[in-house]
Amino acid sequence: MTYAEPRTGRQRKTDTLAKLASHAADIWVATAMVDAAGQVNSHLVPLSLAWIDERIVLATEAGSVTASNLVSQGRARLGLGPTRDVVMVDAELEQVYGLDEVPADLARQYAAQADWDPRESGERMRFLVLRPLRVQAWREVNELPGRTLMRDGAWIT
Amino acid sequence: MTYAEPRTGRQRKTDTLAKLASHAADIWVATAMVDAAGQVNSHLVPLSLAWIDERIVLATEAGSVTASNLVSQGRARLGLGPTRDVVMVDAELEQVYGLDEVPADLARQYAAQADWDPRESGERMRFLVLRPLRVQAWREVNELPGRTLMRDGAWIT
Repeated sequence: MTYAEPRTGRQRKTDTLAKLASHAADIWVATAMVDAAGQVNSHLVPLSLAWIDERIVLATEAGSVTASNLVSQGRARLGLGPTRDVVMVDAELEQVYGLDEVPADLARQYAAQADWDPRESGERMRFLVLRPLRVQAWREVNELPGRTLMRDGAWIT
Repeated sequence: MTYAEPRTGRQRKTDTLAKLASHAADIWVATAMVDAAGQVNSHLVPLSLAWIDERIVLATEAGSVTASNLVSQGRARLGLGPTRDVVMVDAELEQVYGLDEVPADLARQYAAQADWDPRESGERMRFLVLRPLRVQAWREVNELPGRTLMRDGAWIT
């Protein structure tokens, strides 16, 4: 198998920011919880995202597994595809807003990028604002070296 | 927004089996672990899969986070994309093989579907055989009803 030349860190950051800002894109959101029996249960769903002020913003129903896990654990790992051109993000929950308290600007920007408006859904929605702590990007095996673009919440490239 | 008509259960099962059997496909694998401080850490990576005898077979390095989490917790949640035509699988770890113990037939079938051969990687690889317990498939919101195709390890459609 032959691969394209590995991208520079700067190019990966540019590509990553473009992916995060792309219109009507979904991101895989992995969260987890320990149940009453002590079993660790992983959860995974695709959700629409918006990239606003260096934060990943999601919107989902207040009672969903993802919202519950995020509020209880404060952490998620997120993956933007396709699987051979990925951006992986470890993030912490920074803010949760109900529909009656979400800043109008944030809701408007979310709706513009995600191409749907949680305020019109009629459900008990939550906006979840996630701060990236680590960002990695790679395509094929030859891009595994140099894949870390952000560490401890700071871009290193 | 308008959607295509929701698919029947039978059609979703056919599409799901085709996705699971497709050549050189990757699947998102979410696992988790509780660290020493009691924090639940979610992990998520794309891995090549093979669909062999109704099992999802993965191969990854013995020391990887995914292999460690799977061996310790016995569970994973997996997602096949794209994000608006997903198959979600909750699965339990049924078997782990090192390179010196993997059945030749399983390794051969994995290599044929995944388009790479872990036996040639030179790493300490593990084959992880996962038994699906629940399978769900949906495209858009109008396919959320009827999305469960397998429950408790048995196809219900």
